[in-house]
Parts: sequence; structure tokens; C-alpha cells
Amino acid sequence: MRIALAQINVHVGNFAGNLEKMKAAVETAKSQGADIVCLPELATVGYPPRDFLEFEDFIDLAENGIKELAKFAQDIAIVVGSVSRNPVVEGKDLYNSVYFLAEGKVHFVQHKTLLPTYDIFDEYRYFEPASEWKVLEYKGKRIALTVCEDLWNVGNENPLYKICPMDEMMDQSPELILNVSASPFGFAHAEDRLHVLKTNVERYKLPLFYVNHVGAQTEILFDGGSVVLSPDGNVFQEMIYFQEEVQTFDLDEVIKGGQERQQEKDKMTLIHDGLVMGLQNYFGKLGFKKAILGLSGGIDSAVVAVLAARALGEDNVRVILMPSQFSSDHSVNDARQLAENLGVQYDIIPIESMYESFSTALEPHFWAKPFNIAEENIQARIRGMLLMAFSNKFGNIVLNTSNKSEMAVGYGTLYGDMCGGLSVIGDVYKTEVFELARFMNKDGEVIPENIITKPPSAELRPDQKDTDSLPEYDELDPILFQYIEKHQSPQDIIEMGYDEKLVRRILRLVNINEFKRHQTAPVLRVSDKAFGMGRRMPIVGKYLA
Amino acid sequence: MRIALAQINVHVGNFAGNLEKMKAAVETAKSQGADIVCLPELATVGYPPRDFLEFEDFIDLAENGIKELAKFAQDIAIVVGSVSRNPVVEGKDLYNSVYFLAEGKVHFVQHKTLLPTYDIFDEYRYFEPASEWKVLEYKGKRIALTVCEDLWNVGNENPLYKICPMDEMMDQSPELILNVSASPFGFAHAEDRLHVLKTNVERYKLPLFYVNHVGAQTEILFDGGSVVLSPDGNVFQEMIYFQEEVQTFDLDEVIKGGQERQQEKDKMTLIHDGLVMGLQNYFGKLGFKKAILGLSGGIDSAVVAVLAARALGEDNVRVILMPSQFSSDHSVNDARQLAENLGVQYDIIPIESMYESFSTALEPHFWAKPFNIAEENIQARIRGMLLMAFSNKFGNIVLNTSNKSEMAVGYGTLYGDMCGGLSVIGDVYKTEVFELARFMNKDGEVIPENIITKPPSAELRPDQKDTDSLPEYDELDPILFQYIEKHQSPQDIIEMGYDEKLVRRILRLVNINEFKRHQTAPVLRVSDKAFGMGRRMPIVGKYLA
Repeated sequence: MRIALAQINVHVGNFAGNLEKMKAAVETAKSQGADIVCLPELATVGYPPRDFLEFEDFIDLAENGIKELAKFAQDIAIVVGSVSRNPVVEGKDLYNSVYFLAEGKVHFVQHKTLLPTYDIFDEYRYFEPASEWKVLEYKGKRIALTVCEDLWNVGNENPLYKICPMDEMMDQSPELILNVSASPFGFAHAEDRLHVLKTNVERYKLPLFYVNHVGAQTEILFDGGSVVLSPDGNVFQEMIYFQEEVQTFDLDEVIKGGQERQQEKDKMTLIHDGLVMGLQNYFGKLGFKKAILGLSGGIDSAVVAVLAARALGEDNVRVILMPSQFSSDHSVNDARQLAENLGVQYDIIPIESMYESFSTALEPHFWAKPFNIAEENIQARIRGMLLMAFSNKFGNIVLNTSNKSEMAVGYGTLYGDMCGGLSVIGDVYKTEVFELARFMNKDGEVIPENIITKPPSAELRPDQKDTDSLPEYDELDPILFQYIEKHQSPQDIIEMGYDEKLVRRILRLVNINEFKRHQTAPVLRVSDKAFGMGRRMPIVGKYLA
Repeated sequence: MRIALAQINVHVGNFAGNLEKMKAAVETAKSQGADIVCLPELATVGYPPRDFLEFEDFIDLAENGIKELAKFAQDIAIVVGSVSRNPVVEGKDLYNSVYFLAEGKVHFVQHKTLLPTYDIFDEYRYFEPASEWKVLEYKGKRIALTVCEDLWNVGNENPLYKICPMDEMMDQSPELILNVSASPFGFAHAEDRLHVLKTNVERYKLPLFYVNHVGAQTEILFDGGSVVLSPDGNVFQEMIYFQEEVQTFDLDEVIKGGQERQQEKDKMTLIHDGLVMGLQNYFGKLGFKKAILGLSGGIDSAVVAVLAARALGEDNVRVILMPSQFSSDHSVNDARQLAENLGVQYDIIPIESMYESFSTALEPHFWAKPFNIAEENIQARIRGMLLMAFSNKFGNIVLNTSNKSEMAVGYGTLYGDMCGGLSVIGDVYKTEVFELARFMNKDGEVIPENIITKPPSAELRPDQKDTDSLPEYDELDPILFQYIEKHQSPQDIIEMGYDEKLVRRILRLVNINEFKRHQTAPVLRVSDKAFGMGRRMPIVGKYLA
């Protein structure tokens, strides 16, 4: 028996497009001589469909997708994730299911048991868990069908769950495990995933075929990396990251095992490639081509410009340099040099005249109050307005260039530098932005060295430095990481050796700036805990604030 | 036995403040001769605490809150909602519990069974459901303790759930039901709530004491309206809406019944009072006093100005009139008249000079392309910038004045008129905004008649009317309602008699403008389905788009 894994890039709600993708993958698998082809979780509708699942019409379209796809299950069986309706009145209306299509029709359906409801996941909002587990027999093989999280409670060791679907199926003596997944990317997640899958194989001594989504759905990245494991616990194959691919495997060879083929998992490579894919898919799935961003001469906008040029092509990226009276010459020169290195169109629009017009209009109302954050923000907002004007005039999407450190502590101007349709590096801490810049320069200088080495500054008042308001980033970032990713208490973090006053100040800044993060663009997620849908905080809260 | 219901306004994460509130309520109940006082669901931590629940430190503080409160359970028993840790490894880490505190300590704990996980609710993200139900005996009475949703599956008729906690408890022969709730406001919800509670009483023939939160937690409003029901099915008492109150009831009198005391449930009164409370609490809980908004001469900003003046006092509301070359004289005059009627500070800042400075700066880049949405948005964004400048200079929070209709179809400028810290009427359709304006004028003209009667216009180009781009609001709003609140398909809506082309255009506008709504302020929720945390949509989705 030959089994194909098709890691494809579908699009939430694009039923016609997804059907075409699935059909093409089936054809490829057929041409590779596959008996069965596996497509990812909820492949008909895309993942995550979120509240679209509450529309009956949307579910009808998904059911129609399965009906249409089944017609192509001729001389090949198709394993594919989709929704199905719960025929019982009690419980949630839907199941998250894996369908087995053969001979032109639905041959078998198994529902998902373990419904992740944490971080970015809301599955229990929509789905009823399975309460029956059946092993399918096809062409003389007994197959255990599972959906994503179903394999994440191996032997009931995951404290979140009380049922282990594979344990339930083992008395029906399955001979192989298929798993259809939508397992989101995080730079450490591919490692975790392999570990979990290996633990399954060690427990059940069965070959395992695991197919994952690839591509971005707004902020959620899926890295692919579909896996075939041999019963000996070796990785028979790990498929490519961040690209669509169909590969077919001979079951006997997989069972024989003895080969270990893993990809390298370099953090900066993964983040870089993930962000490039995220950008490509955001634009591609919205039907846009062109991006625009402000280039300040600082490292954040530099890194975003490089990512954009690599994702969209230099002809589709436009940058605007918008110096004020506080901008240093080297900032403008560095930015210009970067634009030239990238070969992207750049324009220089000094903002003084607009700043003066606001100052003049506000002067009678500001009663000679001293220059403060109001005037700083006016500059940032003029820049945001100029970018949005280009966006509205020419159809370029504005890229947000805020990093995770400044988003965390609210070091940014709402409607100013925090504007834009997509936050490209909002899940990348400043210290990681430096790493990423070095990574980009590894085969030759793309980002001028001076951009990487000079002290970060917002340049909104004379001789301003980030360190006027914030600690050094190599001190700030670990504190943020302990709080945001690790959920440590102030006391815990202080006990790690950080200054108490600093820790309390930083954590307070994180919590009182929830209102700013609430109004920013979706953030491409590369870590275990990104700002946005995976981190849901009260705005008017008093905790540590 | 005398039982007090204390509908109090706590604040998410404000442990010290919440303890003070609870203690004061206990004292009041004591002074009213109560034997038992009931405080709302999760009263120690506020509702909804969202991902704060993932911090061990936050749970420690909640446990400490119960410990401290228990000390005040002397000569009175305290029924109060809080979190508790799940001692079993398997399952979620927490329970949503009701505590019975007596004689200075925790006497009894019952966990919540039915965990709402839909709309604004995420309870299954955090909580394990109860699997044990015990009736408490206190002072010779057998008491069934329940938490909010636990009473919303009467006799297992709610398709969402499979367990009816009261059915489970009935064989222990309870004599009365206590319920601690955090049941959010919607203008039709008080009616629904009474219906559900009455159905419980009809089934179990028991007196029911139901205490609800009052106050706003960011966008979620709680209306109070705590209820006492007699076994005969009559409403013995329905407590006040939108205000804190402690009332004590004699159990024997409640059991005797025979009185029906319901409040009027007038839609506009409820929306008006709810929004006023929402504004007060947003400012009060953040520690801010002063609001600012742009007054255009249109009805939306007029209604928001009235609400702000009523909520915060006219001395705390400042309005700015920002006419452009496209503003009509009557707009400025109407706005000025309204400001004078309200007695709020107003200033006029014409925006032409700033507009000119942008035009001049952009002219070399815009190649004489015709005036379009870019120039329209520049005007709206200048206004947003001016308001934000005042906000930054003087500490006034900017109020967003977008209504639900325009938020739905994206008829607004991101970072322009869509700016602000709080969306006051973002859950009020335009046709309802008109109703609300009439309601505000019922005891004398506050909003100049001309503001209500003139055709709506954004005034961003010569002689612009909303109807240039949109259908009449009395045609638009019902279509939006069917789609947003009722989840109807395009086909369903067309079959109701609406024009097919129009329906498809409107639904498409709703779906392609998700990116704008993603970046706006929290919206005070007054309906069953508000934009924001209760409606979670993909941004890059293709459904109907």
C-alpha cells in the first residue's frame, strides 16, 4: 500500500479554490501511485474558520466540498478533514471530522476527540468531541484515523484531557495511524511535534502518517513539516517547511524503517522563512500585491523591508523616508542605502511642514505647555497618515514595523508607527530582531551595518534614545519573556535576579498598554505566545497595573 | 431565614478593591438582618478575567481574597463566586466555583457545571466542569448552590448541554436555590433571563434567589436586575438595573409569594442607561475623568456627546468642531448649538491649513491623480490626530463615535473617525441611533432637531450623502441584522424580499471590512451580537467576500 501526504495551502472560506487545491493534490498523489492520499484538518474550509462556523450556509458549503471531492476518490482513497453536523440535538452542532472518501463517496467518518481550547484555539466553542472510535478497514489494512490534537494525549499523560483516542482504538488492532492536522508554527514547535509523534509510535509500535497544513491564515502560520514515522521510532521522512508538497510513501518500507530524515531546525531560518510566507499569504489571499512602509533608518523597519522585498519582490515594495527636524543625517542615509541595496522604490518626504501646520493650529489651545508626548506622537502620526494616503491612493498595504518588545511595553504611537494592515515582526523581541538582521546579512550586507550597531532611537525629540525610557533590550526582553511566555509572577522574576523596581515597572507597562495592542494589526505568530488572538486580556483590568 | 442579594460592581483584577466592596456589602446585609448574603459569580476577581486566569499568581490572589472574606463571615454566611484549583491532574486547572463561607471559614464549595463557550464567553478555555453536585445544609435548610449558566439547561432542554445540575440535585431535596451570576446585558436579555429563571421555578417548585453582577468590564455591561422568585412562579422582586444594591428578603415571605414586581424593560431606556454606565465604568476603573470627541454636526457624535455629558458630567467633556472646506455652515452651527445645550467646552479648529500641508507634501507623489478616498481620509485622519493631540496633552480619553451600521460596512476611516479609546455606540445601528436621539429629547430638546432630521453625510467631499455609497439606513440595518445577529445566509435574506444585488454587496462589505473592525476600540455591548470579543472572524477570509 502506498500512502501520500499532501500538505497544501488552503484559504479560509475559499471553497472553490480549496476544492481545486485538493483535486490537484489528489491528481499528483495518483500520478505517484498512491492508494490513499491524506489532506489536512478542515481542508475544505481552511483553518481556523472561527465564527464562520456559526453560519449554516458556511457548513452547507463545506458539506458540498466533501461531496464534490468524493467524486475524485476514484482509484484512490482520500483522507480529508472537514466539518460535519452533529445529528443529535444535545451538544454542540458540529464535529471536527476526518472523512475517508473512496469509490466516489463518503466511506467512513471519524470525529475529533480532543478539542484544543487554549491560546489561539477555540475548538470547544464550535465542536462536540467524539464519543465513539472505530478503526477503518480498507484494502485489507486496519487504519486508525485521528485529527491533530487526538495524538497529543499519549497514554493519557496530557493533563488537559481525560481520553486518549488511540488507547480507545487499540483493541481493534489497527495496523497504521493516519493523522490530519492543522498544527500552527512556532519556532520551537516542530521539535515538540516530532517528540509527541515519536512518543505515540513508541507506545503503539505502529507506522504513523501525519499531514499538516502549510501556509498562513491571517496571523497564524502553518509550517507543513508533515511527518512519516516508522514503528521503530525513526523519522522516515519529515516534509519541507513552508511549502506545499505531495509525497507518496510505501507502507512496507515505512514499516521496515531504519532511516532517520529530519530537517535542521534553526531558529532564525524558521522565523525568517515563516515571516516571508506569512507576508506572501496575507497579500496573496487578500488579492493584494504591493506593500508600503516607512523606513526610519532603524533596525525594525529595515528588517521588515527586507522581509517584504523577499516575500513580494522588490518591485512590489515601496518605502518612504519621512525625516523630521529630530532625524539624524545618518538615519536618512542608512535608510536610503538600505532601499538601494534592496532595489525598492523610495521617496523622501520631510514632515516639518505638516508638523508646523499642526503646531500652529494647536498653539492657541495648548497654552505654551511644554513639548511632550503630544508633540512626539504628532510626528509619528503624520508618518502614519502619509503612508495611509499612499495606501488609499495606490492600493499598497501598509506594513506595521513594531517589534514585540515595544508592543509589550507600549513604546509606540497608536495610529502612528503602530498603524498598518499587518504586523510583520510584532512577535519578534527586539533582541531577536537584531539576530534576524545579522541572519539576513549572512551572505553579504543587505542591511547597512550602521543600522544594526547604532543605539535604537525613536528620534521624536533631540538626542532621544530608547534607553531614556526603557532598560537595555537584553535586560528588558528576558523579563518580558518570563511574564508573557512563561506566565511568571513578579515575585518569580525578581527571584531570578532582576531588579524589583524594574520588574514591577515593566509588568505594569505590559498590562496598562493592553488598549494599544487591542487596536493594532494582526501579528504574524512565530512564538508560543504572540499578542493577538492567542492572548486575551482585559483592557480595563487592575492586575499588576 | 433572611437572604440578601448584593449586586455589586467589582473590577477585574482589583483584589483589594473587590474585597472592600464585598465587605461593605456583607456589612449592609448584616444591618438588614440577613442570615446569608449572596455575592455574584467570580466576585473576587471580576468577570471576565480572561487570560489573567492563566497566571498562578492571579489565582493565589483570588484564593487570598476568599480567605480574607471568610473572616467576615461572622453572624452571617457569605455565598460568593470565585475560582478554585482543580486538585486532580487531569482536566483544566481551575473550577469556576461558588463558595459558602460561614463561621470565619470556607464551609462548602460547589463548582459550576455548565461552562458557556460561545459569543463573549470562553469558560471552557479555563475551567473544568463540575462532576459532583451536593446540596448544602445550613441552619436547617437544604440549599442548592448554582453558578449562572447552571440554571440555563432546565430539564436538559438546552441543546448545548447534556447535564442539568438542578436535576442532579433534586434527589437531595433542596428547599431553595441560590444562583450567583455574571449575566451580561443585552437590551433583550433581562426578559430572556426572567423567562429561564421562571422555567426553573415552575419545574422545581422552589424559591430562587439570583444575584447578578452590575457594572461594566471594558466592553461587557452587566445590568444587575437580580431576581427573587417565589415557588408559585411570580417575580417576588427584580432589583434595579445598572446600579449597585443590597436587598434582604424573608424566605417565608418569598415562599408565600403572590406578588409580581417586574421593572419596565423599555429598549431605549435600557440602551441609554447601559451606555451611560459603560462610559462611567470605563473611565472610573481606568482612573480617568475627562473625555474628548469631535462634534461634526451629525447625529452619531451628537448622541455620544450627550451620553458622555450624562455619564461624566459636562465639566469633564470637551468637544472639538473641526470643519473642512466641505463642511456646511449648518453643521458647525448645529454642533455649536448642541455644545451650548450640553454646557460642554467646545473649540473650533478648521482643518484646511493642515489639509493643505498634506496636499502640498503629497502633490509630487500623487501625479495629479483625481481626488478620491485618499483625500477624504486625510481629512478624517487630521481630525483623529487633533483629538489624539488633545488626549496626549491633557489626558482626555477620545471617544469613538462610529455606529454599528457604518462599522459593519466599513464606512469610516481607520485612524480617522474610527479612532478613540472606547466605541460608545458601535453596537447601536444607525436607525437605533435616531431612536436614541429622539429618546434623549423626550423631556426637551437637547440635540438640535436639525441634527436628527437632516440626511446623514460624512462631508468629506462636496454635497456628499451617506446614500451616495449606501442604501437608506432603514433598508441597510435589517439586512445587517439578519446577517450579523441572525446568521442568515444571503439566500435567506433575499427570500425575505431584499434585492439580491444589494444583499450580496452589503454582506461582502461586512466581510471584507473585518480588518478595520480588528483595529478599533472595544465596543460597549448592548445587543446579542456586538462587534468585538463576541464575534470572532478571520480577516483574510474568502466567505461571501
